Amino acid sequence: MAKWVYTFGDGKAEGSRDLRALLGGKGANLAEMANLGLPVPPGFTITTEVCAYFYANGSRHPDMLAAQVKAALDHVGALVGRRFGDAERPLLVSVRSGSQASMPGMMDTVLNLGLNNATVEGLAQAAGDRRFAYDSYRRFIQMYSDVVLGVPHHHFEEILESFKEERGFSLDTELSAEDWQKLIGAFQAKILAVHGNPFPQAPEEQLWGAIGAVFGSWMNPRAKIYRQLHNIPESWGTAVTVQAMVFGNMGETSATGVAFTRNPSTGAKELFGEFMINAQGEDVVAGLRTPQPLTEEARHAAGTDGVSMQTALPDVFAEFQRVAERLERHYRDMQDVEFTVERGKLWMLQTRSGKRTARAALRIAVEMAQARLISEEEAVLRIEPASLEQLLHPTIHSGAARNVIATGLPASPGAACGEIVFDAEEAEQLKGTGRKVILVRVETSPEDINGMHAAEGILTTRGGMTSHAAVVARGMGKPCVTGAGSIRVDFGNETMSTAGTTLKKGDLLTLDGTTGQVIAGRVEMQQPEMSGDFATIMEWADKRRRMQVRANAETAADAQAARRFGAEGIGLCRTEHMFFEANRIRALREMILATDEAGRRAALAKLLPIQRGDFATLFEIMAGLPVTIRLFDPPLHEFLPKRPAEVAEVAAAMGVSTDKLERRAAELHESNPMLGFRGCRLAIAFPEIAQMQARAIFEGALEAKRKTGGLPAPEIMVPLVITKPEFDLVKAEIDATARAVAAERGEEVRYSVGTMIELPRACLVAAEIAATAEFFSFGTNDLTQTALGISRDDAGSFLGAYEQRHLLPIDPFVSIDQQGVGELVEMAVARGRAARPDLKLGICGEHGGDPTSIAFFEKIGLNYISCSPFRVPIARLAAAQAALGKVAAQES
Amino acid sequence: MAKWVYTFGDGKAEGSRDLRALLGGKGANLAEMANLGLPVPPGFTITTEVCAYFYANGSRHPDMLAAQVKAALDHVGALVGRRFGDAERPLLVSVRSGSQASMPGMMDTVLNLGLNNATVEGLAQAAGDRRFAYDSYRRFIQMYSDVVLGVPHHHFEEILESFKEERGFSLDTELSAEDWQKLIGAFQAKILAVHGNPFPQAPEEQLWGAIGAVFGSWMNPRAKIYRQLHNIPESWGTAVTVQAMVFGNMGETSATGVAFTRNPSTGAKELFGEFMINAQGEDVVAGLRTPQPLTEEARHAAGTDGVSMQTALPDVFAEFQRVAERLERHYRDMQDVEFTVERGKLWMLQTRSGKRTARAALRIAVEMAQARLISEEEAVLRIEPASLEQLLHPTIHSGAARNVIATGLPASPGAACGEIVFDAEEAEQLKGTGRKVILVRVETSPEDINGMHAAEGILTTRGGMTSHAAVVARGMGKPCVTGAGSIRVDFGNETMSTAGTTLKKGDLLTLDGTTGQVIAGRVEMQQPEMSGDFATIMEWADKRRRMQVRANAETAADAQAARRFGAEGIGLCRTEHMFFEANRIRALREMILATDEAGRRAALAKLLPIQRGDFATLFEIMAGLPVTIRLFDPPLHEFLPKRPAEVAEVAAAMGVSTDKLERRAAELHESNPMLGFRGCRLAIAFPEIAQMQARAIFEGALEAKRKTGGLPAPEIMVPLVITKPEFDLVKAEIDATARAVAAERGEEVRYSVGTMIELPRACLVAAEIAATAEFFSFGTNDLTQTALGISRDDAGSFLGAYEQRHLLPIDPFVSIDQQGVGELVEMAVARGRAARPDLKLGICGEHGGDPTSIAFFEKIGLNYISCSPFRVPIARLAAAQAALGKVAAQES
Repeated sequence: MAKWVYTFGDGKAEGSRDLRALLGGKGANLAEMANLGLPVPPGFTITTEVCAYFYANGSRHPDMLAAQVKAALDHVGALVGRRFGDAERPLLVSVRSGSQASMPGMMDTVLNLGLNNATVEGLAQAAGDRRFAYDSYRRFIQMYSDVVLGVPHHHFEEILESFKEERGFSLDTELSAEDWQKLIGAFQAKILAVHGNPFPQAPEEQLWGAIGAVFGSWMNPRAKIYRQLHNIPESWGTAVTVQAMVFGNMGETSATGVAFTRNPSTGAKELFGEFMINAQGEDVVAGLRTPQPLTEEARHAAGTDGVSMQTALPDVFAEFQRVAERLERHYRDMQDVEFTVERGKLWMLQTRSGKRTARAALRIAVEMAQARLISEEEAVLRIEPASLEQLLHPTIHSGAARNVIATGLPASPGAACGEIVFDAEEAEQLKGTGRKVILVRVETSPEDINGMHAAEGILTTRGGMTSHAAVVARGMGKPCVTGAGSIRVDFGNETMSTAGTTLKKGDLLTLDGTTGQVIAGRVEMQQPEMSGDFATIMEWADKRRRMQVRANAETAADAQAARRFGAEGIGLCRTEHMFFEANRIRALREMILATDEAGRRAALAKLLPIQRGDFATLFEIMAGLPVTIRLFDPPLHEFLPKRPAEVAEVAAAMGVSTDKLERRAAELHESNPMLGFRGCRLAIAFPEIAQMQARAIFEGALEAKRKTGGLPAPEIMVPLVITKPEFDLVKAEIDATARAVAAERGEEVRYSVGTMIELPRACLVAAEIAATAEFFSFGTNDLTQTALGISRDDAGSFLGAYEQRHLLPIDPFVSIDQQGVGELVEMAVARGRAARPDLKLGICGEHGGDPTSIAFFEKIGLNYISCSPFRVPIARLAAAQAALGKVAAQES
Repeated sequence: MAKWVYTFGDGKAEGSRDLRALLGGKGANLAEMANLGLPVPPGFTITTEVCAYFYANGSRHPDMLAAQVKAALDHVGALVGRRFGDAERPLLVSVRSGSQASMPGMMDTVLNLGLNNATVEGLAQAAGDRRFAYDSYRRFIQMYSDVVLGVPHHHFEEILESFKEERGFSLDTELSAEDWQKLIGAFQAKILAVHGNPFPQAPEEQLWGAIGAVFGSWMNPRAKIYRQLHNIPESWGTAVTVQAMVFGNMGETSATGVAFTRNPSTGAKELFGEFMINAQGEDVVAGLRTPQPLTEEARHAAGTDGVSMQTALPDVFAEFQRVAERLERHYRDMQDVEFTVERGKLWMLQTRSGKRTARAALRIAVEMAQARLISEEEAVLRIEPASLEQLLHPTIHSGAARNVIATGLPASPGAACGEIVFDAEEAEQLKGTGRKVILVRVETSPEDINGMHAAEGILTTRGGMTSHAAVVARGMGKPCVTGAGSIRVDFGNETMSTAGTTLKKGDLLTLDGTTGQVIAGRVEMQQPEMSGDFATIMEWADKRRRMQVRANAETAADAQAARRFGAEGIGLCRTEHMFFEANRIRALREMILATDEAGRRAALAKLLPIQRGDFATLFEIMAGLPVTIRLFDPPLHEFLPKRPAEVAEVAAAMGVSTDKLERRAAELHESNPMLGFRGCRLAIAFPEIAQMQARAIFEGALEAKRKTGGLPAPEIMVPLVITKPEFDLVKAEIDATARAVAAERGEEVRYSVGTMIELPRACLVAAEIAATAEFFSFGTNDLTQTALGISRDDAGSFLGAYEQRHLLPIDPFVSIDQQGVGELVEMAVARGRAARPDLKLGICGEHGGDPTSIAFFEKIGLNYISCSPFRVPIARLAAAQAALGKVAAQES
C-alpha cells in the first residue's frame, strides 16, 4: 500500500531529514528534530507525491489518503490528549506547505484549524482565557477565508473598523471576548453572502479545504515566478505539514521567537535572535510591540532596557541553548530556528540552515573546521564564490537608503562616490587637489583614460558591457555603470537629468557598479578585507584546486593587483589595451591609419620601445610565472580618431593632410567590426606588426632577465585563427623574429606559440591547428557572440526579454552556454588533445571568473582559467569547489 | 624489376589511356592512338613515378632507368630506321612533359633533340634541304639552351639581330643555310662564354639534360602557381615523353595543323581547325603566315581565298577525316588534335578532349546522346553547370575589346550597356522615353528601387556582395557591379572619374556583372537562349535529380522568372524585401520606428493588406508548389530613413517630431547589425509583427484559393533561432493566428512551421528544435559569417590576401566551407533527423546555386536547394550531376 502520510512527535518520526524530497524541507526537519528527541509538537506530513498525484488527476487525492490522514490525526490527538472536533479538548492544528527548496512566503499557511462555534469554548476552557480563544477563532476565520475560500481580507477589516469606530476603540486589544464573538457572527454572515456557503464548522471539512489550498498554492503566480527565478522544477511539488498548535500567547510564561545559532552578520559563535512574551509569530510581524534580544549580552550590546529571554525565562532559555547547540552539531551548520514557549514549555517549530553574509560564511566555515565539526573540504564548499565579490570591492552598506535615479548596466563591480565631472581633464585636475570625482560621459574614448584613472567611478549613458568604459574600468578594478540610457547629459550647462531629477557639476553622486544603480548623493560604504578567515579559506581552497588561475592584465597596476589576489600568471595580455593612454594612442593610430608599409613601419618603430618596456615590466612583476601575450587585436573603429583635434594631431604626426587621413579612416569603417579586419587577419595583411610585437616580447624578456636574473618564458598568442595555414604563417614570423633577436643578442628566449580559439570554425578544425599550436586559450566572449549570433554591445535591446521569458537558460555572457558554446569548447578540447596530448588548454573570456562556468571547465579538463584580477579569488575558490566535485548545474 | 619506361608506335603500345596517372595525359593518349593503329611517330614515355623518385632522391634517377631508356631509344630507332647520333640517318626526338592534368604551357619542351655538328648534315641529306637542317639545328640550340642550360633567349636574339643588320636582312627567311651555320658557331661560342661549358654534342647527354629539365620544370614557379590555382596535387608529378621527330616543314607536301572534331564554338558536327603548308607548330604560333581552313566549306564560310587542306592535300585530308572520326567515336567526345604531314604522310601528335563554349557543350552532348555515342547520363555529366551562366544572361561578346576603367565586385551576373545617370528618378524618366540607362550611385537605398528597375544595370562605388544594390539586383536578375572603390562620383558636376578617365552623365557605359568590370563605351553583346539543346539537357537532368530545386523570390516578377527557369517552389521569400519600393517603405519604417505597441500596430495595419496581396499573388503564380515564407528579418539599419526628407516624411506619417524620430533611429543604431536585433528576436520582442504576417499569409492563401481553386500550403519560416523555446514561442503565435483566421473565415489553411538554421548554436541544438520544427532551411550565408567570424561586407579588406596565400581552401561565400560550416550543417542534419525522421531539409543561402556546394548537399541528403531564379538551371543540372555521383572536391 502506498504510504502518503508520515507522522512525527513524541521523540520519534516515520521520516527523517533524508526524505527532504518527499516531505519537503520543513517536514523533513521536523521529523529529524523529533527523532533527536527534541520537543516538537506532534504532527504529520502529506508527501510531495500526493501533490504530483493531485496535479496529474484533476485535483483529486489518492484513494487511501483520507484513511491515512484520519489515522495520523488520531495518533497526534492521542499524543497531546486532545481530539479533532472535540468540544472540550479540541485538537487544533496548523497546515503549512513545504517543498524541497526553500520558497519563503511564496505559499499559504493556515493556523488554528479545528476551531468552530463549539470547540472555541473548549479552547477557552483549556486556556482559561475566553478572549484568547475568540481572538484565535477570528484569526482562523480570516486566514482560512482568505486562503481557502477566496474571500478577501478587506471584507473583515471593514467590519472590524466600523465596529471599533462605533465603540470608540482605537486598538484591537481594547476588544473583549464578547466583542470578538459578535464580530465572528458578522464575519460568518459576510462569508455566507460573499462565498455563497457558510463558513465550514466541521473540522474535517476545514482540514481538507486547507490541504487542497496548499496544493493549489504550488501553482499560484507568485510561486511560479519564484520557481522560475530560482530554477526550481515544477515537478518537485509541495508537501503539506499538519501539526498540533502550540500557543505563545497564553500569558506571561508563553513566548515566541526566532534565532540563529551563530551571528549571521559577523559569524560570531553566539545565539542571535529575538523573542516576544505572550505573542504569536504574526504579532512579531505586525510590529506593534518590539521583540527583545535572547541574551543579556546582546541586550547590553544593543543598549536596550527590555528584558532578555535569558532573564525572563531562564530555565527555558537554558533548554533552548542546549537544543540550539545540539541542532548545530547535528546539522553541522549554523541553524535558523523558530520556537514557541507555551506556559513555560519549549516547542521547536522549525530548523534550517541559516542565511548569512559572506563575511559570516567565511568565519563560520573556518571556525567549524577548526573545531573539527566539518572538514576543510566542506568549509571550502560552504562558501558561495560569487559572494566574495562583496569582500573584494568597497560596497554600499547593506542598511543604507538609496535614492536611485537611474539604472544602467553593472559594467564593473564595487561602489564609489564623488563629485560629478563631465570632462576627463577636469577630473584629473580635481583629483590633483584631493577631491573625489565621478566621471560622467556619454561614452568614453582613449582620450579619457587619465580622467578615468583619476575618477572614483565612471558612468556612461551609452555603451554595453564590452564598451570602452566597461573594459577599461574592469581592468582598473574601478566601479562603472554603462548604458544608463535614461540619463541625458547637457555638456553645455554641465548638468545631467533623468525623469524628475537634475544634477549639476559638483553634486555628489554614488555609483553601484555591482547592480548598475546610479544614486544621488552620498551613501555609506563598507571597505574590503582579505586577511583572516578569507585568507584561511583561500589557502584551503588552493590546496584542493587542480586548475591554475591566472589573470587578464596589461598594466603594471593590473599585474600587481593580480599577484595580490593570488594569480599564478597572466592568461591574457591584450596588447592593444596597452595603448589606451593619450600619449600612446597617437602612435597606435599612425600605425592603423598608415596607407603603406613604410608608413606602418615608421609608426611601429615608435611603438617598439613602448611595448618592450611594458613587457619587461610585466615579466618582472610576474617573475617566474607564465605570461600569455596576445598579438594586436584592436577593433579598429575604437581606435580611430574622431574629434577634429585628434584627426589634426595624427595627420600632423604622419605628415599627411587631414582630408587624406579622414578618407583613410572612412575606408577602415566596418559594418560589423566584430566580424571584421581583426586579430591575425591584421598580422597576415601587415606582417611587420607581428614582427614588431614579437621583437618587443623577446627583447623585453631579455631586459627583464638582466634585472631579475631569471629568464621569463612568454606564451605568444595568435588571435582569431580559423585555419591552420593562418596560424602557421604568423608563427613563422614569430619564430623568424626569435632567431633574429637571438642572433643579435647572443641569447635565446624560451617561448611557446599558441592561439586563441574564439570562433566556431576554430573549434571544428582544432586538431589541425593543434598540430603546430602549443596552447589554446578559449576566448569564450567572442565564441559566444558568434555561436549565438549575438553582439554583446547590441544585445540590450532583446536579451532582457529573453531572460524574462526563459528563452535562454542563462545569460550566456555571464555563464557559459554549456549546451551550445560549451559543446564547441569540448569538441576543441577533444580534437586538440587527440592531435597533441600535451596541448595546454586555458580560457581567458569573462567566463573565467564565473563559478558555474569554472565547474564546467573543470569537468572538461582545462589546465587553467584566467579572469580579471579582481575575480581571481572567486575563481580560486570556484576552481577548488569544482575539483571537489561541485557540478555546474544548468538548465537545458 | 620496376618498369620506368613505356614504348609506343607501329600500331601498338605498352601503355593505354587508362594509364593516365602513370604516363600523363599526352603519353597515355599517344599510347592509345598507337594501339588504335593510328599513325603516331614512335616514342616512349618515362613515367610519373620517375618524377616522384627524382624529387624524393635529390634529383637522382632510379638505377635501371638508363638501361630502359637506351632500350626504348633503340626500339624507336629500329621502327623509323634511324639511330640516335648516327651521322647519316640520325634519330631526332622531341622531349615533352605531360602530367595527369592538363597544364598548358606551364612546363618546358625541347624539339629536334639529337642534332649536333655532325648529325645536322645527315638531316640535310635526308631532307635534301641544308637550310631546313641548319634552321632546325639553330632552333634546337636556342630551345635547349634556354630550357636546359639556363642561357636566356636574348643572347641569341642579339647575335641574330646584329647579323641581320650587318647583312641588311629584315626577315629570318632571308638567311641561307650558310648564314645559319655561321650563326650556330656564334651561338655555341656564346653558350661557352655564358654557361662555362660547350653546347653538348653527344645526343645522350642532350637527352638526359632534357629529361632532367622536364622533371625540374614541375617545380618551377609558374607550374606551382598553376597547380595552386587549379587544385592539382604536387604529388602527381609529370611524365616525360620522348618521340621521334616528324617535320611539317619539308616542303609543299608537308604541313602542320590543329583541329577540333566538332565546332568548339557552336558544337556543329564538322571538322574545325586550321593548317599551314611547309611549317612547324611554332611557325603557326609566330603568326608570320596565316593558317588556312581545313575544309572547303569552312573556307567559303570565312570568305578567304586561301587553299583548304581538303583541296591542297585531298588524300591526306581524307585519311585525317577518318582518323578524326575514329578518335571521336573511340573517346566518345569531341577531340582537339594536333597533326603533322611529312612529305604526304599523316602523323598524329596529340589528341585530347577539346575545350568548348557552353553552347557547343550542350549541342555536342545532346547530339552524341541522340547518336547513342554516349548515354543521357553522360550527356548530363558533360556540362559544367557554372558554364550555363553564359546562356542565362546577356553577355559581352567573347571577341569584343574592352576598355576597362575600373573593376568592382561581380555582384550580379550578366552584362548591360546604357547611358550613365546618377539619380534614380532620372533613370525612371529616361527609361520612360525609351532610353537605356546605367544607374551609378555611391550606394543604393530602398528609395532607388524604381530607378534600379528602370536601369539596365547598376554600379555602386561602395558596398559588398550583400549590399542593398547587390541583393536587389540579383533578385531582379539585373547586372550589377558594387564596391568599385577606385571610381569617384561627383554628383554636383554629374561626372564619375577614375585614374585617367572622367565620364559624364549621358556617356555610354557597359557593366560586366559576371567579372565586375566597368567598361567605357558600348561593347557587343550576345543574348541568352534557353530552348533547344538547353531544354533537352535540362529535361534529362531533371529525370536524374533527387533534390528539389526552388528559388529565392519575393516579387511577382521573381516568381515568374523562377517558374520560367524551372523552379519547383519558392525556398525563401524574404518578406522584408517586399518593402523595398518607395511607396511601401514608409509603412515599414513606421513599424520599425514605433516606440510602443500601439504605434507598431497602427503601422502593421497599413502593412497587412500589402502583405496579404503580395502573398496571394505569389501563391497564385506558384500554384500547387511549396512557398517558404520567412518572417521579417530586416537588418534594421538598412531600413532606417537617412535623408532629412525621408525622416520628415516618416515623422509626419507617425505624428511625431523629427527630433523624436531621429532619437529613436539613434537608439536603433547597432555596432554589429549582423549579430543584432534581427530575425525571431523581433517577433519575440514584438509578437504583433509575427501575428500580422501570419494573418497575411493565411488570408492571402484563402484569397489565392478563391482565384485558382487550389489551396496553397505555405511553409512559414522563423529566422535566426538558437533555442527551442524561441521557436516554440513564435510558432505559438502563428498557430493562434491560424486558428483565429480559420474561425473568422470558416476555412482552414494547411501550413507547416519550420526554421532557418543560420547560427552555429542552432546546428548544435538541432535535435531539440526539430522536436517542434517541421523543416530546417540552412541559411549558409549567415552561418558562414558567424562560424568563420567574417562579415561579408567587410571581408574585402583581407579576403583577397587570404585567397592569394591559400589560407582558406576556397572563398567560403562562393562554395560552402565543407570542413567548417559543412560539419555544422551535417551535424544539424543528423541531429535533426534523429529527432524527427521526416524533417524536411533545405538550403537557401547563396551556396544553393553553387555546383560544388550542391554536390555536398546531395552527399549529406538535403531534400531541396533554393537559389536565385537565374541560377535555378545551374542548380538543376548540378543537382542531377550530384545525384549521378559527381563528388564535391575541396581541399582541406
